[in-house]
Amino acid sequence: MTSEIVSVGTELLLGDIVNSDAQFISRKLADLGIDIYYQTVVGDNQNRLKNCLKTAFSRSDIVITTGGLGPTEDDLTKETGCSVLGKKLINDSRALEDMKEFFKVSGRQMSENNLKQALVPEGGKVLYNENGTAPGIIAEENGKILIMLPGPPNELKPMFEKYVVPFLKSKQEYILVSRLLRVVKLGESMTEYMIRDLIDAQSNPTIATYAKDFEVVVKVTAKAKNIDEGNKIIEPVAKEIKKRFGHDLYAEGDTNIIEYTCKKLLEKKITVAAAESCTGGMVSKSFTDMPGISEIFIEGAVTYCNDAKMRRLGVKKETLDKFTAVSAQTAAEMAEGIAKTAGTDIGLSTTGIAGPGGGTAEKPVGLVYIGIYIKGKTITKELHLNGNRDKIRKRAVNSLFDALRRELEKENIF
Amino acid sequence: MTSEIVSVGTELLLGDIVNSDAQFISRKLADLGIDIYYQTVVGDNQNRLKNCLKTAFSRSDIVITTGGLGPTEDDLTKETGCSVLGKKLINDSRALEDMKEFFKVSGRQMSENNLKQALVPEGGKVLYNENGTAPGIIAEENGKILIMLPGPPNELKPMFEKYVVPFLKSKQEYILVSRLLRVVKLGESMTEYMIRDLIDAQSNPTIATYAKDFEVVVKVTAKAKNIDEGNKIIEPVAKEIKKRFGHDLYAEGDTNIIEYTCKKLLEKKITVAAAESCTGGMVSKSFTDMPGISEIFIEGAVTYCNDAKMRRLGVKKETLDKFTAVSAQTAAEMAEGIAKTAGTDIGLSTTGIAGPGGGTAEKPVGLVYIGIYIKGKTITKELHLNGNRDKIRKRAVNSLFDALRRELEKENIF
Repeated sequence: MTSEIVSVGTELLLGDIVNSDAQFISRKLADLGIDIYYQTVVGDNQNRLKNCLKTAFSRSDIVITTGGLGPTEDDLTKETGCSVLGKKLINDSRALEDMKEFFKVSGRQMSENNLKQALVPEGGKVLYNENGTAPGIIAEENGKILIMLPGPPNELKPMFEKYVVPFLKSKQEYILVSRLLRVVKLGESMTEYMIRDLIDAQSNPTIATYAKDFEVVVKVTAKAKNIDEGNKIIEPVAKEIKKRFGHDLYAEGDTNIIEYTCKKLLEKKITVAAAESCTGGMVSKSFTDMPGISEIFIEGAVTYCNDAKMRRLGVKKETLDKFTAVSAQTAAEMAEGIAKTAGTDIGLSTTGIAGPGGGTAEKPVGLVYIGIYIKGKTITKELHLNGNRDKIRKRAVNSLFDALRRELEKENIF
Repeated sequence: MTSEIVSVGTELLLGDIVNSDAQFISRKLADLGIDIYYQTVVGDNQNRLKNCLKTAFSRSDIVITTGGLGPTEDDLTKETGCSVLGKKLINDSRALEDMKEFFKVSGRQMSENNLKQALVPEGGKVLYNENGTAPGIIAEENGKILIMLPGPPNELKPMFEKYVVPFLKSKQEYILVSRLLRVVKLGESMTEYMIRDLIDAQSNPTIATYAKDFEVVVKVTAKAKNIDEGNKIIEPVAKEIKKRFGHDLYAEGDTNIIEYTCKKLLEKKITVAAAESCTGGMVSKSFTDMPGISEIFIEGAVTYCNDAKMRRLGVKKETLDKFTAVSAQTAAEMAEGIAKTAGTDIGLSTTGIAGPGGGTAEKPVGLVYIGIYIKGKTITKELHLNGNRDKIRKRAVNSLFDALRRELEKENIF
């Protein structure tokens, strides 16, 4: 089965919004193993939309539209889609009741225009909308499938999960089962190189690598009759991949190095404090992104100038004079200083040159030292990071969390 | 002139990335006053790409492609585009030199494959790439224009600004001149309501409102023969709009409330320190996003638990006991505490409930207090913010910067 997406909305053509719906649906179709060859964006114009839908049906089995199901005169997707497919529109009583209820609960007045949202194609499947007024629709005719979904992502996504995924699965003989294995530190080409033979040798499961901001995800995907069978196909391959990457492979599933490390610290009730120079609050922010982290994240200090490093963290003047603020020695004293004054198990620190200015031949932009104080000893690392100011700062934060994770694995704490 | 975008890349069809290039180009075309009726995404497949380009040229004057200009066998855009347009490919010596230089500087080995990136259509304009190896291309034939750009946004965006914008302007009889007026605190509908009569009355300039994360941008756009004429058309309308919004309109142009406030503080050399609870480092991060801010941003403290608030900032135990951590009184003592210990002109603070847990009937999720200590006095504000944890934290940060900006305007410091 081949598919394509037709996104309807002038706001997409004007660049007012990015087409995140198309990305969401595309990823879901890929997960289901359904080929998708085209995405098209067209404005709220009946003629152009009609031509797009005709072209789409001439080359694909499934056409998924987004947007244009609302109550205004600009909303033409349902009428146009049904006319291209040769379907008559009739009133759906439940869609009408749902809509009346929605307006009652939200305390808003329902206008006459809204009534057209309860029109559905004869014989079609109505996808009731729990997060808005316009229902989605699935219509079939002569082996062609038209799926029409509302544009707002908070309406489209739950509707897709609840109705469209099971519907498309019912049309598929096989399902796809995937596992994500997360690798840090190695780039994408090195990651791929280390499992090249496995990638080349496999057809089921397939193995693919995806570069993310700070890590590489190895995705192992099996074609199977059900989830259990899929997992059985994946297991030996996943085991071999894990063996090859050792500690560079830190977790399975949908996570990232920061979230993973925070969760582990919470689980083990290990307290932390952070002293930041070049990352200027990003380490603290990363911790406090997680609800409930106050149980173990005790304090952060952003000591952006030397004076604050001495006053707040007890970094020695001699250390700063002799080695400068961007040095392993300063990173070490910062990590110790914050752990001692905050009374935590672990103290973390960053100090470096995020740029664009401030670099020298000896200490160039991208040079960052990180420090970890843990159980009476202090580890520091020298990093050489690429990118602009924002990238360098983000990479420093991720490197710090990864270094902490490795240290705790070494100590058998994780 | 009508235009459309053809984005080439299987990673878009798989949903691995969102089509931010299409959004960027669409917005630029809208700014230039060039109509765009379609965006299409197609994979790295020669036949399908060829058909897409033929369709595109049959209905539009300008076709802009993104992606597929790289060195691999999958990269087919240039060959396919030139064949559809009937253009021969020849070697461009400067593109070749640039590429050799790029590999020399980055210390990487140039493979044979890379040579094909120096091929350009005869008579075409080469858009040299300062941020990568693949040059962009503009080719014209029989009144049709083909613009081919590399996919990576950090290569595409500067290339578009440097080459494509001037090229497209040269094809237009009129240019569009825009001015952005930035309004905070009022929502989009209130902003629009306050200038409804102006919006309805105008045809040149046009007035439109755009909702951003924390502010509304009023865009005044004039159609004119040149920039001076455009500015003359805009001036009286912009003046009237400014009068209506007073202090809620804080700046003109491409900025945001955080950047604007930081720049003003830097200009006036006013020193600041921040004590954060619920925003957990985001205020410090916002300051340190700006290079050179260390001149005035002295220190940040993330005091996530009560103990740290007392120990680090000198918040009184009685205050915490009587009013709790989420109170105007605590916010005031935090702001005073950080300014005094860091020795700065200004002390800022945040304390609140970012959720999802931790809310009560009396102190619900979204309740945030901010504090500003300045010139011996302390101001606090009670905020009631909507959204998820991330949104609430971001809104708290933006509200704090806006409150600070207003305070400094009141004191005639800004």
